[in-house]
Amino acid sequence: MGSDLFTARLQRAQAATAAAGLDALLITPGPDLRYLTGYVAKPLERLTCLVLPAAADPVLIVPFLERAAAEAAGVSELGLDIADWQETDDPIALVRKLLPASTKVYGLDDHMWAEKVLKLRDGLPGVEQALAGGVLRELRIRKTPDEVQALRDAGAAIDRVHARMGEWLRAGRTEREVGRDIGDAIVAEGHVRADFIIVGSGPNGASPHHDVSYRVIAPGDPVVVDIGGTTEAGYCSDETRCYAVGEPDAEFTTYYDVLLQAQIAACEAVRPGIGAQEIDRVARKVITDAGYGEYFIHRTGHGIGMEGHEHPYIVEGNDEALEPGMAFSIEPGIYLPGRHGARIEDIVVCTSDGGERVNLRPRELVVLPA
Amino acid sequence: MGSDLFTARLQRAQAATAAAGLDALLITPGPDLRYLTGYVAKPLERLTCLVLPAAADPVLIVPFLERAAAEAAGVSELGLDIADWQETDDPIALVRKLLPASTKVYGLDDHMWAEKVLKLRDGLPGVEQALAGGVLRELRIRKTPDEVQALRDAGAAIDRVHARMGEWLRAGRTEREVGRDIGDAIVAEGHVRADFIIVGSGPNGASPHHDVSYRVIAPGDPVVVDIGGTTEAGYCSDETRCYAVGEPDAEFTTYYDVLLQAQIAACEAVRPGIGAQEIDRVARKVITDAGYGEYFIHRTGHGIGMEGHEHPYIVEGNDEALEPGMAFSIEPGIYLPGRHGARIEDIVVCTSDGGERVNLRPRELVVLPA
Repeated sequence: MGSDLFTARLQRAQAATAAAGLDALLITPGPDLRYLTGYVAKPLERLTCLVLPAAADPVLIVPFLERAAAEAAGVSELGLDIADWQETDDPIALVRKLLPASTKVYGLDDHMWAEKVLKLRDGLPGVEQALAGGVLRELRIRKTPDEVQALRDAGAAIDRVHARMGEWLRAGRTEREVGRDIGDAIVAEGHVRADFIIVGSGPNGASPHHDVSYRVIAPGDPVVVDIGGTTEAGYCSDETRCYAVGEPDAEFTTYYDVLLQAQIAACEAVRPGIGAQEIDRVARKVITDAGYGEYFIHRTGHGIGMEGHEHPYIVEGNDEALEPGMAFSIEPGIYLPGRHGARIEDIVVCTSDGGERVNLRPRELVVLPA
Repeated sequence: MGSDLFTARLQRAQAATAAAGLDALLITPGPDLRYLTGYVAKPLERLTCLVLPAAADPVLIVPFLERAAAEAAGVSELGLDIADWQETDDPIALVRKLLPASTKVYGLDDHMWAEKVLKLRDGLPGVEQALAGGVLRELRIRKTPDEVQALRDAGAAIDRVHARMGEWLRAGRTEREVGRDIGDAIVAEGHVRADFIIVGSGPNGASPHHDVSYRVIAPGDPVVVDIGGTTEAGYCSDETRCYAVGEPDAEFTTYYDVLLQAQIAACEAVRPGIGAQEIDRVARKVITDAGYGEYFIHRTGHGIGMEGHEHPYIVEGNDEALEPGMAFSIEPGIYLPGRHGARIEDIVVCTSDGGERVNLRPRELVVLPA
């Protein structure tokens, strides 16, 4: 069944490649390669690359020392030929040989490293480079029921981590110490790895992409905890909740209530046909109307699936209509520089008549003992 | 002192940029950005990019929501201006504005994503794209005494993990279970994260880039354990040792002895002035002379520092002369498909008169109880 899934995806990708006017895609290790073939490989300096012509059989190029790993991943069962190269060979020559001779334009994996992009450019003079992302996003953006279930599983796993936050988060510990415990729990609760751990206490909460620091958490601090990982199935979790270690100040609780209403309103606005930017506007209006608009300094959300950030982006300017199966974060925030900040984030899947949140932890502020 | 270090590196990079005939470098999140500025940022869809002209002041472009994180990383203290962009802005326009008007050719971060490479290509028509890597490798390839100490610290940390292997590795457990314990220990013993964990038992040991699997380790299995992580200081560890769970078969012990002699000989061959490929030849000759040449299917090693794989590569065809401060793995292997395999790996730093191994665990096969 696994190989049927990937065979079907490869065929759909070929059809989409042709429809986009591309002659082939070149896909290097990462989420696109995993999506199309199931092969989980690390991006490294040696070239591993799926050559996927629109109108010929695909071939996976691998360094010889990785042939066994590719075979163990079941690549051959997909009817995918494997072409290997030795340490002193030129893998670009292999790409040139495997691309159909008539190729005029090929699509590069969006995450391919520049060193490979430029080697291909120089090794295939006269052939145009485009991006594969536009082709593959159309396949990946609508999650199948199995994929939605995988996102629910990821959501439940990260919910379990948030449910345990009181074990670790308290005054007197550093963000880094708390972050390490969270990282262990992300794995223990059902991920193969932690992808990011933000523990933004006090003023650090006002930096949306804060990481962890040596700051010692103080009594009364609000703390933004934004965490996620990747499950065995290859799907990502991402959930933000806010905590306070003892009672926070009045201003924080005032704007937290605004934020909560904004996040709830945006989640409730999700339905097929609505433009992605409309979801952003719903959240922004609640926050702006309450006088905090200038402190909501980022878009409302990003798609999620086999990547932590993918299409669709929930941002002003994206008028793409939501469709059933699209999955994305809804994560408005309010950030007061030098003071504190708050963000509430759920992953939501657009259904046939609304939206389903896959994160089910309460969204109210959790006040822990100081 | 930290900021002096980065200021000096930025100035050296500018001089090297000019010397390479490039007008500027564009550096996105990753090891090069960290090396030049100390800023640790994740590569994401939003553009973060150091614009480093050869003959003008550098500027760091960041999404507005990451300005606080960049400032917290101390970027402003380097005399680096920060230019931020809002969610609905076009960051490529900002690059265009910040590059000197006379720019004819700029160097891209070797790891920049293709989606950014092609947007820059299209947004800066008529300006040539090259790679920054050739410029930066000259700065990064010779480690300073502080960097060598950081590699020793990383080596000691991963040595401590190997020293504990008997706690986890035994018959009846899966490679995955063992790998999870190793991953916890990599962090516990002095890394901020595990970068890779290979536990290749029995026939899986014959796949050099095996990961972990659900295979249950059996009595008598040889097991290749190749593991590494990144320390707080940003330097990588990487060490391979072989274990057996009970007594392995006679063929394994026969070729393991050959491999050990090859690895020792290659380590002892390290000295300033010798070509990188000569180290590969030394290891390969021992293995080939013993009749196992066809089973040594990869190069002998790779450079290491802030990246797990970097220059210099210890491979046939690379006649670059080793110099004091160059740091690289020496990791010959012998792989018998369907049977088992072995690899022994140390990180070695070229000194003024030889080589210093930063991994100090015994290299003999460790036979654990079954």
